[in-house]
Parts: sequence; structure tokens; C-alpha cells
Amino acid sequence: MKWCRFSTGGPISYGIIEDETVIQVEGDPFGEYTKTSNTHKLSDVKLEVPMIPPTFYAAGINYPEHVTWAAQMRGEEPVLPTQADVGYRAINALVPDGHDIIVPKDASELLQYEGELAVIIGKTCRNVSEAEALDYVFGYSIGNDVSERNWQRNDRTMWRAKNTDTFKPMGPWIVTGLNPDDLHVVIKVNDRVVGEYDVATAIFGVRTFISKMSQYLTLVPGDMLWMGTDGATENMKDGDVCSITINDIGTLTNKVNWQK
Amino acid sequence: MKWCRFSTGGPISYGIIEDETVIQVEGDPFGEYTKTSNTHKLSDVKLEVPMIPPTFYAAGINYPEHVTWAAQMRGEEPVLPTQADVGYRAINALVPDGHDIIVPKDASELLQYEGELAVIIGKTCRNVSEAEALDYVFGYSIGNDVSERNWQRNDRTMWRAKNTDTFKPMGPWIVTGLNPDDLHVVIKVNDRVVGEYDVATAIFGVRTFISKMSQYLTLVPGDMLWMGTDGATENMKDGDVCSITINDIGTLTNKVNWQK
Repeated sequence: MKWCRFSTGGPISYGIIEDETVIQVEGDPFGEYTKTSNTHKLSDVKLEVPMIPPTFYAAGINYPEHVTWAAQMRGEEPVLPTQADVGYRAINALVPDGHDIIVPKDASELLQYEGELAVIIGKTCRNVSEAEALDYVFGYSIGNDVSERNWQRNDRTMWRAKNTDTFKPMGPWIVTGLNPDDLHVVIKVNDRVVGEYDVATAIFGVRTFISKMSQYLTLVPGDMLWMGTDGATENMKDGDVCSITINDIGTLTNKVNWQK
Repeated sequence: MKWCRFSTGGPISYGIIEDETVIQVEGDPFGEYTKTSNTHKLSDVKLEVPMIPPTFYAAGINYPEHVTWAAQMRGEEPVLPTQADVGYRAINALVPDGHDIIVPKDASELLQYEGELAVIIGKTCRNVSEAEALDYVFGYSIGNDVSERNWQRNDRTMWRAKNTDTFKPMGPWIVTGLNPDDLHVVIKVNDRVVGEYDVATAIFGVRTFISKMSQYLTLVPGDMLWMGTDGATENMKDGDVCSITINDIGTLTNKVNWQK
């Protein structure tokens, strides 16, 4: 099933997408909901960020080639993480498919994409095993963990490096019923493939993160976990269009709009 | 004015506290609201976490003596931060006044309090000056940034060191109309004063953080910023009661409950 949040000039609603039709839904996607008789052509609606999470988690450095590349950039030996320590992103930065990535004037040229799987929690969980973990997943989407590497290296936290307004494109929708082990990420800038990888090559997978996190904290419906990216990443410049495709989900596309 | 969130066995409501009476409020504390005729004695209601923020920011190392102490603990020279880089906390960890701090069995003895001012944003802001910043504050409350220092040192992020469930006591309520420069924090464990400081001695104050953050991101009503603590902090053990008092706000009291 394919879930979205959408608007048509007024308030935002949840919707279910079937073929090219968006069916407005009333109620709670995680609980009781009903399809209304209100339908739209997909091309007639504005897709919104598909989920505003209570807490927005991010796995960070979680793929071997990306860890190795990032260490080389810093002139250091790569050190792979030894446990699944999760980080945070902020909802102010979320924008939907098609929204510009608006880059502050004082950003350096080191503005880079990170194409990654977004996991949306569907049921409250605490103390779940790896074997049970995927039962608590609502569905999967696509995130672009846009990063300004100069701020990332020099600020004490990643607040503006990763959470400047518009630096977290997400969408276009959420697909349920997938196996994360079957997913493959392809990242393009304009029409050039700049990176691709299998989600399953993560140092720590979705099951490990959810299980480990749930030993210490309660995950609730709508909480979101972005899984990190693999490989080297490149600079984007004003006007570049970054698109991230995951099979069985779709494509997230956003243009870079550098403030003058 | 003194705002709270409370319950009396059913759903949670906003309330305004006048003397020892809680007046139930309908509507939006940040916009249009009305006092209802539904009132309770303060002692008859359960106070809840006074605000669930869309994004939960924390200033982190923001007072000179605390920075110096923390560096000494690590056997390093103290380095004061040179700019107001904000970090994050997570809402799963929030608990109200009177709720136990529940410590996982595998925590080390290095479980410590951090008594601090909590600032709640009242109006959407972007690109505001330091002079304007306090106009965007709704009110002030008290936070205990409970930290497990072993996890804080050894994990890659502070996810369980600071955001294990119940590690973010906050309350008992929010007070509007205060000047943060006039506030003084007193921290006790059981009946012993273990630390006290003036909020105004922060390396970067409330105005600086709000203004700096708003150059890159949008703050929205309900967003919360905890300002960091000063001085050395000590271990708490099972059964200890930590209370944090800020003049003109009140006292936040929570007991340590170590899982066996």
C-alpha cells in the first residue's frame, strides 16, 4: 500500500495512492482509518512531506564505503562503528518531493547529497528483538540527508550542517509491505548516476537499530529512522537536480537553489 | 501567567494555574484560547510534561565551570565553545515533575543530574536579531538533563546517555513574562545543595541562541531549548531525590529508580 500526505490548496490530508489516483483518508494511518469518497488525480495534488515524526532518528555513518571515504576526506584512518548508536535530525528541515533545497549564502561549496532509506515506525515498541523488529515498521520512504561538510566538520554539532531549513527532502510517499533487504538505492545528480548501493550492505541494519534503540527508549507510531548512505558523495551546485530512486518505492527529486 | 498540562484520570488538557487552582483551557496556548468553567485544586490533578515540543533543542556545554569540570574528568584542557551550536534531545525521554528517573540495569554509576532552564518558543521565527529574540519566547520551565557519563563518553552519539526513557524530567509548569537574566538555579540531591548558578552567566544566552538558530532554521510554537548547566555534577544513586529550583518558576523533583 502507498501512503501520502497531500493538499489541494487547503489543509493537509493523509491519502492512499492507487495507480494514478489519491484517495483521501480519514482517521489514523496507524490505527482506525477509512477511505473517503474524495479522490484526486495524483498529478492534481501537492504531495507534502509524507510523515512528520515525533522524533526523527538517523543512523549516520552506517555503510563501509561512506565511512572510508569520509575518513579519507579528513585525512584519517577509517574507523567502523562498533555499535548501532543513533543520532537525530530535526523536522524544521523536512521538505517534500519537488521542493527546492534552499542553500544559505554563507554555505561553502561542500554541499552534498546523501540518498538513504527512511523507515517509519507503525506501532509503539520497547524491548523488541531483532527477529520481531520489522513487525513494528509501518513502511519505507526515501530521504536526502543533505549536508554542508564545512559546517559538519567545524561546528560542535550538526545543527546547521544537516538541519538548515529544506536540508531534509523526504518522499514522495511511504510504501508498506516491503522487505528492506530487497532495496537498492540509486542517486543521480542531473542525469548522471553518482552513487548506488544495496540497503542490505549496512553495517547495522533496520532490525538491529530498532531492536537496540528499543532496549533504552520507546519508539512510537510516526517516529522515523533514516539509515545512512553508502559511498563517496559529491558537491551539488546551484541549479543541480538531485534524484534518489529506491526500487518498489519511487523517486525523490529536489533542485538546489542557492541564495544569492 | 503559569501554564501547565494536566490530567485527572482522562485525557490531557492545558491549564492555567492561579494560586492553588488549575483552570482548564480550551484552544491554543500560543493563539486563541479560552478559560473554561472547569477548575480543579492543584493538589487534585496530575501534572503532565508541560510541553511536547515539535523539536527539542539543547545548548549542551554552555557554562564555563561545567566545561572546565567536564574537561578535567576527561583529563583534557578545557576548550570553551566559540559559537552557539545547538544540539538535540528526544521527546521519548520527557517525564513530568514527580515521575521517577528509571535507570536501566546496565547503566554505570556515573548517572548525573544537570539542572537547567527550559525555554519554550511561542511564535514562529526566522532571522530574528538578539534584540528581538525574547519576543518569540512563550515562557520558561525547568529541565533535568539526566546523563549517564559512561555512555556519553563511549557511544558515538548521546542517544542513550541523555535520551533513555525518563532521562528528561521537565516541569512542573511554564511561567510567562520572566526575564531570563534574573533567574538563579539551585540543584539539590536529597536535602543537600549540590550546585547553583545564575542563568545569565551562560557562555551564550537565550537571545544569542534564538537569534543564531533562526539564521538557519525556523523555530515554531512549542519548540523547546534547554540552556545547559553550570558547575560539576555528581552521581545519583537508587532512591536519591533530585530537585531543581528556579526562582519565579518553581521546583522540579524526581526520584532515581534503578532497575534491579
